[in-house]
Amino acid sequence: MDATLFSQAAIEMRRRIITMTSKAGSGHMTSSLSCVELLIVLFSQFIHYDPIFPNNIFNDRFILSKGHAAPALYALYSLAGWIHEDELESLRERGSRLEGHPTRRLPFIDVATGSLGQGLAVGIGEAIGLQRLDPQPHVFVMLGDGEMAEGSVWEAMAVGAKHDVSNIVAIVDCNRLGQSGESIIGSEIETLAKRTESFGWKTKVIDGHDLIAIDEALKGATSSPGPHMILAKTIKGKGYPLSEDKEGWHAKVLNTEELAKALEHLGAAQNIHLQVQKPQRHVPISRKPSSLRVYSPAFQNPTATKMAFGKAVESIVSQDRDCMVIDGDVKNSTMTQGAFVSYPAQAIESYIVEQTMMGMATGLDVVGKTVIVSTFAAFLTRAFDQLRMAALSSRRIIVNGSYAGVSIGKDGASQMGLEDIAMMRTLPESVVVYPSDAYSAYALLHELYSLDTLSYIRTTREPTPLLYGPLAKFPLGGSHIHGASDADQVTIIAAGITLFEALKAQQELSSQGVAIRVIDAYSIKPLDCETISLSVHQTHGRVIVVEDHRQQGGLGEAVLSGIAGDGQVFFKHLCVHGIPGSAAPQEELQEHHIDVEAIVRAVRGMV
Amino acid sequence: MDATLFSQAAIEMRRRIITMTSKAGSGHMTSSLSCVELLIVLFSQFIHYDPIFPNNIFNDRFILSKGHAAPALYALYSLAGWIHEDELESLRERGSRLEGHPTRRLPFIDVATGSLGQGLAVGIGEAIGLQRLDPQPHVFVMLGDGEMAEGSVWEAMAVGAKHDVSNIVAIVDCNRLGQSGESIIGSEIETLAKRTESFGWKTKVIDGHDLIAIDEALKGATSSPGPHMILAKTIKGKGYPLSEDKEGWHAKVLNTEELAKALEHLGAAQNIHLQVQKPQRHVPISRKPSSLRVYSPAFQNPTATKMAFGKAVESIVSQDRDCMVIDGDVKNSTMTQGAFVSYPAQAIESYIVEQTMMGMATGLDVVGKTVIVSTFAAFLTRAFDQLRMAALSSRRIIVNGSYAGVSIGKDGASQMGLEDIAMMRTLPESVVVYPSDAYSAYALLHELYSLDTLSYIRTTREPTPLLYGPLAKFPLGGSHIHGASDADQVTIIAAGITLFEALKAQQELSSQGVAIRVIDAYSIKPLDCETISLSVHQTHGRVIVVEDHRQQGGLGEAVLSGIAGDGQVFFKHLCVHGIPGSAAPQEELQEHHIDVEAIVRAVRGMV
Repeated sequence: MDATLFSQAAIEMRRRIITMTSKAGSGHMTSSLSCVELLIVLFSQFIHYDPIFPNNIFNDRFILSKGHAAPALYALYSLAGWIHEDELESLRERGSRLEGHPTRRLPFIDVATGSLGQGLAVGIGEAIGLQRLDPQPHVFVMLGDGEMAEGSVWEAMAVGAKHDVSNIVAIVDCNRLGQSGESIIGSEIETLAKRTESFGWKTKVIDGHDLIAIDEALKGATSSPGPHMILAKTIKGKGYPLSEDKEGWHAKVLNTEELAKALEHLGAAQNIHLQVQKPQRHVPISRKPSSLRVYSPAFQNPTATKMAFGKAVESIVSQDRDCMVIDGDVKNSTMTQGAFVSYPAQAIESYIVEQTMMGMATGLDVVGKTVIVSTFAAFLTRAFDQLRMAALSSRRIIVNGSYAGVSIGKDGASQMGLEDIAMMRTLPESVVVYPSDAYSAYALLHELYSLDTLSYIRTTREPTPLLYGPLAKFPLGGSHIHGASDADQVTIIAAGITLFEALKAQQELSSQGVAIRVIDAYSIKPLDCETISLSVHQTHGRVIVVEDHRQQGGLGEAVLSGIAGDGQVFFKHLCVHGIPGSAAPQEELQEHHIDVEAIVRAVRGMV
Repeated sequence: MDATLFSQAAIEMRRRIITMTSKAGSGHMTSSLSCVELLIVLFSQFIHYDPIFPNNIFNDRFILSKGHAAPALYALYSLAGWIHEDELESLRERGSRLEGHPTRRLPFIDVATGSLGQGLAVGIGEAIGLQRLDPQPHVFVMLGDGEMAEGSVWEAMAVGAKHDVSNIVAIVDCNRLGQSGESIIGSEIETLAKRTESFGWKTKVIDGHDLIAIDEALKGATSSPGPHMILAKTIKGKGYPLSEDKEGWHAKVLNTEELAKALEHLGAAQNIHLQVQKPQRHVPISRKPSSLRVYSPAFQNPTATKMAFGKAVESIVSQDRDCMVIDGDVKNSTMTQGAFVSYPAQAIESYIVEQTMMGMATGLDVVGKTVIVSTFAAFLTRAFDQLRMAALSSRRIIVNGSYAGVSIGKDGASQMGLEDIAMMRTLPESVVVYPSDAYSAYALLHELYSLDTLSYIRTTREPTPLLYGPLAKFPLGGSHIHGASDADQVTIIAAGITLFEALKAQQELSSQGVAIRVIDAYSIKPLDCETISLSVHQTHGRVIVVEDHRQQGGLGEAVLSGIAGDGQVFFKHLCVHGIPGSAAPQEELQEHHIDVEAIVRAVRGMV
């Protein structure tokens, strides 16, 4: 290690940090200044990465979980020659790759960060995905001490230790201060060390500005199996004395005068180049095979969509050895269990940790795996922030939300996913499907496999009749019409469990001489607006949406958004209101007026 | 302690658990059987509770965080005479108070549980709320070892220790098994003990079926300041030998034949009564004063709604000494800081722990506090499951989501709340408001204070012009119309920051001879459907919604739901699509086509 070079690099890096944040007029200068030495030693001595081929599977991976220190990372990139020094001036400007928090606009960044406490789970996913390579790449995650308060960090630690993830090194920049005061741990770094040790991480406390100590700690962490945790005591604002270890500086930057003084204090600009080592081998991250065979088994009548989903998972993991399944201790309910038994090497039990599960999926996607994540739809709400960040990172994950809706029955409201469609629809570029029968569930999971974005399949606990055959097609953005005739007076739009109620209503009304049309809107996002619009028009503007979900953000509002501006529309929405109680599945549908009777009544009120 | 009575009670309680779950045909029998002795000793020896007055502030509080063990709790209630034994037969039936997981249908239950890992944070909130009473009531929280995987438990522990919450006792029913296999900790209970110790909880490991050991541990925990953690080694399915410590029994119940054998094995039914002690004092939980003075300060032009929100928080906490403010280390951004400085006894810094923050708020509400919880709108997604459970518990919390929308600018997408309206709208009985100027923000927080349900206020970072005066009224479910005339050709509906873009568009179009009407839909839920419908009708069905939020589940879809079925509507929705980047606030509005230009274009396309 060239300590002189690195000391000079630290000065130059600090110059660039304070200059670019001053120019931008905002940014987290002091949080960036505290991790300068850590980043210099890490990137110059330990990380193997080829900036020309970010997509080389043998690259080590780095995640700046404390994303607000982005200026430090950008300054380091400029010292390493990965970006030009001039680009630093564009920090936080419209169109710049150097955003306020790291994003994938820069090719060296795999996941957007900035919502704290998420990086470690992502790193664990990456580390697991890289574990079978030779030589085995390392994953480095830099956290702040503030974000160590987030429970997501601790559940990730427990899972990482449980799965013996040996090629990961977490580095915590313990600069004592959060945004509005001391961090939860403050200066009690030994307490923090006890905690991380007790969670099964080999822990070392060091001075985070001591180049030699950093080098030694990282040597230890990269030469023995982990998981490793380096707790680095640092000074927030280090290098700009007025801000050092001071409250009130979290979001402050320097004005022109302060900047001039600070630069003078730091010392003259220097032309420093930091050399980052390249990995020994070069293999591009492989993606899924281009096509998948869809040989649906013959399903018995009735079959729950969760069962067919389970079979589809087995089909996919058997065809793509880079496809992984993650489940949160409900595999015997969501029915990923078959894949766990038949393909254990591709299955990860992540226990009851929905946040970490989603973070791991994100990390596995980074290193080329296709991931199917599965739990109850209700409990996906626990991971909304992780889902949001995965979507903002344009990562590809297939999410299964099982036991959706009031139709699960007796377990009661806490177990009923009733806001999942709204949640998943809000994610940018997401795809949302909701199959009704076994064949559509089986086919739709295979459809989601072909996507490059985050997608969601909603599955049901109750067995439902077989409606389609093994050869039926379910293109995304499509729908299926049941019983269209010129005499149809109302369009009913449903998906999943309520589709069968709609079909029963169709039959009952038909016997009474009222023809209605039923559309299976299995593809909720994108929605088949064309077919729906046409049908609504043909049924004189009369449309009823019936769904086992809340009014807000579900299929009903998706339909309204889809046909808004289509002229005369008479709309009725049957959906779940209030707080459901325990009851039998059919009782629940009745109680919430989303059953055949309610549909018949609604139609009668319209025609 | 009467060990003989308690041993007999344990037998009788197990008889009732297996009988009621067998009758119901579902329920978590084995998870209930493992905590029988723990519940008996706890309720008979340590809990002080008057079942006639659940609302007595001097009652101790109990939370069954492992909610799936509800049958154990119901069996205990029947032994204590709080419910009649016959009622046990209604377990999980439609309309029954004995739901699959505990809910507030029973008066002894303060919060619905069943989404694991949430009870401890609620307990900490209750304990903080009770801390100043004399005698000080205790809070007992029973968890499962499976849910100890959830990060939310660990962040709650860290916060509980940090705030020296001394009157809380957590009891973990360590029965080794989760739903689909071993829990993450398995039988390594000593590892778990090291972890809880390191998090600052006084920890004791005991045999959870040993009545004397339980009694001693609880004696220790209730006679010395905590926080205390009792890790009780138990056997899942204890009492039904075929299921004891066996996998595959998580959701199984007994058929008639098995039940008969099991009852015979346990021993004859006995008429046991368990006496629960009553608290020494009786004072009903007090609620907020009935009215609040709203003396708005004079705001400068422009002022950010976050600033006015901060002032309103100060106004409310100054008037109601039972009003508490919780902030997640962003008080100097959300502007709750004023209250933290002026009323420190009513302010809780909860560090970067959104889940625990919401759980604590729920617990504080239980013991009669009014709680305002505040963080960035984006980070509320981290607590969606906690918000969901708070709503299912009909708890009253005022939630502030600050820094909403792309208009925050340079910090970038990770910090932008763009799905918060959708999320908060899905909650049953929630109220959602989005003020545009300082006066409306100030008034609306006071309006939310008067509610008995969960509510949400969305606030903005950027200063906005003053639009209203200190005397303007903002009733929930209302709206304000700007510039109505008979000549209006289009209705523009906006709220918050985009309202000003709409008003600019109105002015610009007016100078071109096109009259449009602008509605400030500050009350998004409930929405002023009547006014909106009428206006849309008057403007020939033409309506444009412009919002700094995603398309799904936001104001636009709320409007569509509100006016659905109103006949001919021509609708255009201006909202945020895709992944925003860093830019200046006004640039963001422009980039996402939610600015004046975009509105003018949209109007021009319609008229």
